[in-house]
Amino acid sequence: MTNTLDITKREQTINLGAGPSSLPTSVLLEAAQGILDYQGTGMGLTELSHRSKTFQALMDKTEADLRALMSVPDSHAVLFLQGGGTEQFSATALNLLAAHAVHNPDYFATNGNQGPPCDYAVTGSWTAKAVKEAARLGANTNVAVDARKVEGAGGKFGSIPRVSEWKLSPVASKPAMLYYCDNETVDGVEYPSPGFPLDQLPEDYRKTVPIVADCSSNILSRPIDVAAHAIVFFGAQKNVGPSGVTVAIVRKDLIVDPDAGVAHGGPRIPTTLVYKNMLDNGSLYNTPSMFAIYASGLVFDDLLRNKGGVAGATERSAQKAALIYGVIEASEGVFLPTVRQASARSRMNVTFRISKPGQNQPDEKLEDAFVKRCAEANIVQVKGHRSVGGIRTSLYNAVTIEQTQKLAEVMKTFARDAKDGKL
Amino acid sequence: MTNTLDITKREQTINLGAGPSSLPTSVLLEAAQGILDYQGTGMGLTELSHRSKTFQALMDKTEADLRALMSVPDSHAVLFLQGGGTEQFSATALNLLAAHAVHNPDYFATNGNQGPPCDYAVTGSWTAKAVKEAARLGANTNVAVDARKVEGAGGKFGSIPRVSEWKLSPVASKPAMLYYCDNETVDGVEYPSPGFPLDQLPEDYRKTVPIVADCSSNILSRPIDVAAHAIVFFGAQKNVGPSGVTVAIVRKDLIVDPDAGVAHGGPRIPTTLVYKNMLDNGSLYNTPSMFAIYASGLVFDDLLRNKGGVAGATERSAQKAALIYGVIEASEGVFLPTVRQASARSRMNVTFRISKPGQNQPDEKLEDAFVKRCAEANIVQVKGHRSVGGIRTSLYNAVTIEQTQKLAEVMKTFARDAKDGKL
Repeated sequence: MTNTLDITKREQTINLGAGPSSLPTSVLLEAAQGILDYQGTGMGLTELSHRSKTFQALMDKTEADLRALMSVPDSHAVLFLQGGGTEQFSATALNLLAAHAVHNPDYFATNGNQGPPCDYAVTGSWTAKAVKEAARLGANTNVAVDARKVEGAGGKFGSIPRVSEWKLSPVASKPAMLYYCDNETVDGVEYPSPGFPLDQLPEDYRKTVPIVADCSSNILSRPIDVAAHAIVFFGAQKNVGPSGVTVAIVRKDLIVDPDAGVAHGGPRIPTTLVYKNMLDNGSLYNTPSMFAIYASGLVFDDLLRNKGGVAGATERSAQKAALIYGVIEASEGVFLPTVRQASARSRMNVTFRISKPGQNQPDEKLEDAFVKRCAEANIVQVKGHRSVGGIRTSLYNAVTIEQTQKLAEVMKTFARDAKDGKL
Repeated sequence: MTNTLDITKREQTINLGAGPSSLPTSVLLEAAQGILDYQGTGMGLTELSHRSKTFQALMDKTEADLRALMSVPDSHAVLFLQGGGTEQFSATALNLLAAHAVHNPDYFATNGNQGPPCDYAVTGSWTAKAVKEAARLGANTNVAVDARKVEGAGGKFGSIPRVSEWKLSPVASKPAMLYYCDNETVDGVEYPSPGFPLDQLPEDYRKTVPIVADCSSNILSRPIDVAAHAIVFFGAQKNVGPSGVTVAIVRKDLIVDPDAGVAHGGPRIPTTLVYKNMLDNGSLYNTPSMFAIYASGLVFDDLLRNKGGVAGATERSAQKAALIYGVIEASEGVFLPTVRQASARSRMNVTFRISKPGQNQPDEKLEDAFVKRCAEANIVQVKGHRSVGGIRTSLYNAVTIEQTQKLAEVMKTFARDAKDGKL
């Protein structure tokens, strides 16, 4: 008995969604077979026991491939979690506060029953949410920088202020963490690569304060120095796989039993958010999100073995971003980048407004016309986030150079037509 | 361009796994197409924005179908969550404690800074875990009954003591909840249907104390009186869909902003566990586990429109269970039920040990031989949970009567061979 899949329309479509976003067709074709009969077991992948040897082998390979792709050192655990990046807003702070309480049992009592500072670098919508959540949960948060509030920002995100201007907590106050987001999906703001801002931090701070990076929307698009971080986490649904799984790469010496810290001011943490439970059980503390892990593993395998690993993705990302930013630059004011600091413009999420030539003013009618032009060329999901407006074309790993070239052509024609008064 | 799926071996396989467990082939075939091109959009379902109209329509239909299947009243919200049943061990207690704090702002201070009692009926491994988790999080837990500790239990689960013997907290102490598990997957213990234990509870208790049911492993296999419950929740990966989504059906007047209760002794709740966030955002507070919701929706549609709804499932479940328990009964001591109380034997998870005839003693060699016999008949995933041992054949909704008949035949032949000394 056989069954056939129709991918005709898929092959014609260019999906530039900001996430959940497109995945390689080859991966999804393999997954389609896998959910009906995984590797000849007669059972679909999501119908297997998560305690079976077959699924354990999948978990092992998925972790090994990710470790190879990212050069994850043995000092760090790789955890496959649920709840999305949003749950990690809570989990990163809670687990690091627990570690702080366990490692510094006298801290809370000797500091007037106040927990250690948690530093946040707010450069976009996601870090703004992360610091709000940590404060809700009782953390002693410190906004080291808020990019909306620096000179020239006008209350909007669109730059990454120099680290020398950040108001970091004193090292002597033993901060529990410094949190940043490597690429702000909504705002199109990305830290310039590589190694920034770590190499700009004061040395004693960098060496003692656990550093947390939210890499949900640019992971596997360029190298990251995992060893320099306490936690690197990312939701799957951009460069990795379908929504439903979140990976947290965590330095093992910071993974503690939180219950041992409660008497010392540490937080009570719901069991599924406790990193130690996941570490001790190889991410199988409870039933995981099996399909999302499976498809993510197929993406890892494909990137590692067929597409040159992270080095290959880095090169392609640079090419794609250069192409589209080049078109924006050459548009003579038709396309207006929303990120004012050129070095902070994201390679993943290219955000811009559209103006009549010479007016330097967003024009929603022109933006609607552009979305329509894209649709006519089968280029979809290009509207900007509702909080920012305008256009956002996301150039994640699954978007090919050929697809990016087609986008560039549509943009060029549109800019020319705008200048010729044809719109 | 087309692609072909091979389901030959799948069609020959009978998967009796206890969960994650089998799903209808028709559902998975549709899902296979859907992950490559969902309804002719040119994009796979997991590649769509979760904020798109297309995905919103899927959410709306999925909720409407589930409401129709379960006759969910308007008084109750249907929330699609992540984190599995295990996360609901935390979330049910935390959210109901928050509601209690908001609705009874003076309670904490006037009760010596102690929260309200939370009653638990422990009848198997999952409720044992649930009460442990609530206590970890600081709840004032009361084990109203522990089925391992009643007379004749010998420290093992295998019965449901009468509600009149439970030590419920006094109504005057304003308990925050009573928690039970309708079907204990590991132990094969299920409450007799219908309406038990609710109708055995004292009337004032039943009318005032929020009642929580974990129905992860028997939902949609028989009716449940949702209106009588504060919360009915279930992980998908038994009768519903692939792992990755958990449904919580919650009485709306108990859904509060937990931050408003913190000053009154209520807990701080990580944002993804806060029911109010999910209610206010139609379960799209953050990116949901899209594939799991999608496939669950296909199962709801199939059950509602093709398979007679919950009434049809109830009838088939009864037939399947009667068939297998009948074979056990007729085996003259070869198959030994592990649940000593006949009325508490699960229709979903039939758990038994295997003995030499007349010895009434589990024989692991015979059990291994039985697993092998099953494998020869392409009947797979029948080993008992590691904490119980023996055999567990799970007869979830996707297991057909024909497949159950094949299992019955294998069991009958095995019992005969055992009695004939052929094993």
